[in-house]
Amino acid sequence: MSIQDAQALDREDSLANTRGDFYLPQDTIYLDGNSLGCLPVRARERAREVVEQQWGGDLIKSWNTHNWIDMPVTVGEKIAKLIGAAPGQTLCCDSISVNLFKLLSAALLLQRGRPVVLSTRNNFPTDLYMVQGMESFLGRDRCQLQLCGYEEMESALNEQVAVLLLSHVDFRSGQIFDMRRITEAAHAKGILVIWDLAHSAGVIPIELDACKVDFAVGCGYKYLNGGPGAPAFLYVAQRHLADVCQPLCGWMGHKAPFDFSQHYKPAEGVSRFLSGTPPVISMSVLDAALDVFEGITLAQIRNKSLALSSFFIRLIEQSESLGELSLISPREPALRGSHLAYQHSAAYAVCQALIARGVVADFRAPDILRLGFSPLYLRFVDIWHSVRVMETVFSSGIWREAAYSEKSRVT
Amino acid sequence: MSIQDAQALDREDSLANTRGDFYLPQDTIYLDGNSLGCLPVRARERAREVVEQQWGGDLIKSWNTHNWIDMPVTVGEKIAKLIGAAPGQTLCCDSISVNLFKLLSAALLLQRGRPVVLSTRNNFPTDLYMVQGMESFLGRDRCQLQLCGYEEMESALNEQVAVLLLSHVDFRSGQIFDMRRITEAAHAKGILVIWDLAHSAGVIPIELDACKVDFAVGCGYKYLNGGPGAPAFLYVAQRHLADVCQPLCGWMGHKAPFDFSQHYKPAEGVSRFLSGTPPVISMSVLDAALDVFEGITLAQIRNKSLALSSFFIRLIEQSESLGELSLISPREPALRGSHLAYQHSAAYAVCQALIARGVVADFRAPDILRLGFSPLYLRFVDIWHSVRVMETVFSSGIWREAAYSEKSRVT
Repeated sequence: MSIQDAQALDREDSLANTRGDFYLPQDTIYLDGNSLGCLPVRARERAREVVEQQWGGDLIKSWNTHNWIDMPVTVGEKIAKLIGAAPGQTLCCDSISVNLFKLLSAALLLQRGRPVVLSTRNNFPTDLYMVQGMESFLGRDRCQLQLCGYEEMESALNEQVAVLLLSHVDFRSGQIFDMRRITEAAHAKGILVIWDLAHSAGVIPIELDACKVDFAVGCGYKYLNGGPGAPAFLYVAQRHLADVCQPLCGWMGHKAPFDFSQHYKPAEGVSRFLSGTPPVISMSVLDAALDVFEGITLAQIRNKSLALSSFFIRLIEQSESLGELSLISPREPALRGSHLAYQHSAAYAVCQALIARGVVADFRAPDILRLGFSPLYLRFVDIWHSVRVMETVFSSGIWREAAYSEKSRVT
Repeated sequence: MSIQDAQALDREDSLANTRGDFYLPQDTIYLDGNSLGCLPVRARERAREVVEQQWGGDLIKSWNTHNWIDMPVTVGEKIAKLIGAAPGQTLCCDSISVNLFKLLSAALLLQRGRPVVLSTRNNFPTDLYMVQGMESFLGRDRCQLQLCGYEEMESALNEQVAVLLLSHVDFRSGQIFDMRRITEAAHAKGILVIWDLAHSAGVIPIELDACKVDFAVGCGYKYLNGGPGAPAFLYVAQRHLADVCQPLCGWMGHKAPFDFSQHYKPAEGVSRFLSGTPPVISMSVLDAALDVFEGITLAQIRNKSLALSSFFIRLIEQSESLGELSLISPREPALRGSHLAYQHSAAYAVCQALIARGVVADFRAPDILRLGFSPLYLRFVDIWHSVRVMETVFSSGIWREAAYSEKSRVT
C-alpha cells in the first residue's frame, strides 16, 4: 500500500467534493469528528446571520419572521431524513441526557408494573446515570437499572423488563448493534426499546420506522457537525404518540404556549416532548450544518466510512512499528460504526504525542486510542499520512516523554 | 414635560455610555428587552470567535484550551455576582423549565412527607406546568400543586407545604415580591423557597444569600442579553449542597466525567446539578454579554430603570389621547420591576400598530400591552418619542385596521 493507492482511492471518491463544504484546521489530520465534527462553511455563515441580522437587527420579531419558534420541529425533520423517520416523530431539543430522561419517563409510564430498565455495562455512562437518577427518584419499585454484557442481553429479556436502553454503536469499541433484530426480540417480550444514536446518526443508514423502534435520542455535534454542545434530538414512534406523556412539560410543549393558561395541555404529537425555550443560536448553526447532507446519500457516506477505516486497519497491520496497537473494534466492516478503537497500555500518552504532531485522535479511559473517520471531510491520503505520523511516534518512542503523560481533564 | 426634560435626564444619566456596548436596531425604539435583550457588541465578537477560531480552528482541543468544560461554572459565577450569591452556588445550564425540574425534585427529596408545592395563580405558566408534570409523574402523595392569589399566600403556608415557588417579578403586572419577607415567612413553617428570577436578574439588585433563599432559577436572554434561547441559570444555597440530589444526573454532573465509570457519583457542590454537554456556542455568547455589567452597579441600573418607567407613566398620564390605557403595574416604584403593563381591550392590535411604527412592545394574553425598560441601552428621549408614537396610534385610530388584529403566533 502506497500513497499512490490512497490517491487512487481519492480520485474514485464520490464524496470528494463535500470536503469543500467544511473549514478544516491547518496542518492537522482530524480523526475526531466522532467527538466534535468540523465547522461547515454554511454553519459559519448562519452563525453570523442569526447573531448579527436576526438577533441584532430583527430582535423579538425573529420568533415569527425567521421562524425561530418552529425550529425544534424543522430541524428535527431534517434529522428525521437521516434516521429513517417519517415526519412528525423527531424533535431537536435539549441534551441527550435530558431527552433520555423524558423518554425513560414516557416508557416507564407506558409500562406500569414492569420496573426494569435493561442496558449493557459498556453503554455510554450518561445513559446509565440517567437511569440511576430515575431509580433513586422514583424508587426501585418503579425503576431498576439492570446491566448485562452484550452476549447475555437476549437471555435477560423478560416480562420484568420495561425498557431496553442501548447505544446503536458502542462509544468505545465501535461495535454496531443489530437494531432490527434486537428491537424485534425485545418487542416479543413486550419490552420498549430506546436507541442512543450518538455514534451512528449521520454516518450509518438508520431505519427507525422500518425497524419499529419505539424511541431514540442522538447527538448534534458529532457526525451531524452542529458545533460544540449542539442541541440533541429525540424520536418517538407515531404509534406511541397518542398515549405517551413525559414530566418535563414546559411551555414549549404546551398545545398553545402563548395563551399562557394555568393548566398544561400537551401539544398534539411529538411536540409535547419539548420543554423550555430553544437555544436559537446553537440550533440555527446545527440547522445550517445539516444542509451538507443534501444531495448525498447515507449509503455513500457509509461506504466511504468503511473504506476509510478498512484502509486504516490495513496500513496499521502492514506497519512494522505499530504492532503494539491492538484493534478492539470488529474487523468485519458490517459490524462496526465509523470509529476504530485500539488498545495500548500507554494510549493516553500516545494520543497526546499524536495530537502534538497534528493527528487529532482521542483517548478513552482506561487504555483506548480512538480514531474517527468522518467521510464528509477526510481523504484517503489523510489516512495514509496519519499512519506515517503514528509510525514516527512509535518508532521514536517519543510518547514516553513525561510531557505526554500528564493528564488534562478532557481528551 | 417636554423633550428638553428628556434630554436633561439623559445628560445626567450615569449609564449613558453603556448604550455604546450594544448594537441597536435602526429606526426602532425597543421596549422589549424584558423578552429578548439587545445584542451586545462583545457578544457579536465572541460569537465569531467561538465559531470561527475555537470550533473551526482548534476543534476538540478547545474543551481544554478555551476552557469550554468549565463554562457552566465560570458563566454561573459571573451571574452569581448579579444576584447576591457567593461563589460555589450558581451554574449556567439548560432552560429554566429543566432547571426548575431539577430544583423541584431536589426540594421534594429534602422535604419527604410534605407533598404540596404552593405557587401563585399568576405565576409564569412554565413554572406551573413543571409542577403539574412532576405531580403526574410522582403521584399526588409526593407532589401536589396548590395555587393561590398573592394575598392568600401567607395564610396558605403550613406544614403540608414542601416548596413555595414564586416569580420575583410577575411577568404580566411587573409586581415585585418581597423576597426577604416571604422567604422568612416560608422558613418559619419549614418550607423551602424556589425563586424564579426571569424578570429581575440583571435589572434589580438581588440578595439571594442575604435573604437566605434556598433555590433560584433565571433567564439568560432577557436582562442578561445573552441572545435568543440563551442558557438559563440555577442557584442552590451552600447549606443544602451536602444533602441535596436531583434525578437529571447526566455525565457533566459526575465527580469525574472522563473516567467513564458505570456508577454515578455526584460532583462535589453545585456541579451535581449539571446534566448533559453544555451548549458551548450559546453559552459563550452569554458569557461575553455578561461583561457589559463590569464596572457598573445594580443600584445604578435599578435607579435608571425606575426613572425610565416613572417618566413613561407621567408622559402617558399627561397625554390627552392615551386615557384608554389602564396601568395595572404598581405605581409605587419600589413595588415594580422593570416593565409596565397596561390593560386595553385591543391590546394586541395596538401592540401591532406600535411595532409597525418602530416602537417594539409586546402583548400578553388576554389584553395586556407590556413595555420593558432596559436601562443599559434606553435613553429618556427614546421614552419621550415612544409616547409620541403611541399618541399617533391612538389619535388616528389606526390600530382598528384589520391588518393589526390578525394574530401571529408569537408576539
